[in-house]
Amino acid sequence: MSGTLFGVGLGPGDPGLITRRAAALIENASVVAYPSLAGGDSFARAIAADLIPPTAREIRMDVPMSRDRAPAQAAYDAGAEEISEALENGQDVVCLCEGDPFFYGSFMYLFARLRSRFPVKVVPGVTSLTACAARAALPLTARNEVLTVLPGPLPDADLRDHIARADTLILMKVGRHLARLRALLTDAGLLPMATYVERATLGAERVLPLSEAPDDAPYFSMILIAKGADPWL
Amino acid sequence: MSGTLFGVGLGPGDPGLITRRAAALIENASVVAYPSLAGGDSFARAIAADLIPPTAREIRMDVPMSRDRAPAQAAYDAGAEEISEALENGQDVVCLCEGDPFFYGSFMYLFARLRSRFPVKVVPGVTSLTACAARAALPLTARNEVLTVLPGPLPDADLRDHIARADTLILMKVGRHLARLRALLTDAGLLPMATYVERATLGAERVLPLSEAPDDAPYFSMILIAKGADPWL
Repeated sequence: MSGTLFGVGLGPGDPGLITRRAAALIENASVVAYPSLAGGDSFARAIAADLIPPTAREIRMDVPMSRDRAPAQAAYDAGAEEISEALENGQDVVCLCEGDPFFYGSFMYLFARLRSRFPVKVVPGVTSLTACAARAALPLTARNEVLTVLPGPLPDADLRDHIARADTLILMKVGRHLARLRALLTDAGLLPMATYVERATLGAERVLPLSEAPDDAPYFSMILIAKGADPWL
Repeated sequence: MSGTLFGVGLGPGDPGLITRRAAALIENASVVAYPSLAGGDSFARAIAADLIPPTAREIRMDVPMSRDRAPAQAAYDAGAEEISEALENGQDVVCLCEGDPFFYGSFMYLFARLRSRFPVKVVPGVTSLTACAARAALPLTARNEVLTVLPGPLPDADLRDHIARADTLILMKVGRHLARLRALLTDAGLLPMATYVERATLGAERVLPLSEAPDDAPYFSMILIAKGADPWL
């Protein structure tokens, strides 16, 4: 009998936002796996640090940051190989995932490699989407409103087209695209209602009007444009 | 000193998907509040049932189901009044919310009524969005894909416009709109890649190709159209 691969969402960063199911799986894990970026620390591991048993074996996937996809894909190939050896030996593997595994998560790369050979279970997590809304005290959607989530790196023309049609609009992966995104939103008349959130639920969190946000935003930052609660009274 | 109103997301239904922060708040609550629909049971209360202290006071808001908004708004008026009395007496109130309080959640109606008078804190929860994706084993979004969330009750013309532009597409609040939505997706050539999920994470859960879904879908049902993991290998 082979083991099961668990893709476990940890939420946006505050360890209190880990679900009870995720916590139980990590506390009882004999093998945990996680990505780390560019030789630095692993954010996923840091979120779950208090839960990882000292006896657990840890499989670390060091994913290089580059626009060329091949080096990152090679890191997932190597990680999938190491994970598959544990699964073949009948061990379950708990893969730690920031946010939710299937919402812009790197777990998909392992899922694509291993789903046909092993049982895989996914434990959903709190996404940065609703975590940022909670921290900004900004209701996202009610009734029949449409929600659009746009990655900041998209080309201007695509962004303009979606921005023109959106009710509630979320811009993810803002980072170094902030000035460009702010200009697009200003053109669309949306700057006064845009909120910027950086590192939601962490100690270094910041919530600001987008007009006051720094041009050098970190990767974990988001812009929210929502009507707020009062229109729904 | 007035108390604090906590809007606490409970996730999609499986009590294991309650976060540790939410569980701690409920276990220590002296006053809990929750909506119930049309005189029936409260789904929110059922999710958290094991955590509610027997000594806690319970404020129940019985929200009638009707297309006319006035009766529901009157129920929230009455609930907000009862909650505000507890807050004025210095008691914290923990409001139980299915899913996430700010993602198509009725907590917004309380938030709109009470935010200017009392401190309000929101604890985000796992949304049905990623819970359905996890149960359907269907990654939602990767890289620079756009996610669009559409409520099923929208008019056909609006739905067609958004469907034509979407990468990953989620249709919420499917219920009695299922046959109409299926026809629209068929016209757009998307039926073969559409997945239907009903009562995700609950005992009565069903995951089916949309082509095999029943016309009499329950309110808690969703249609997902996503490319899956393999294109991201």
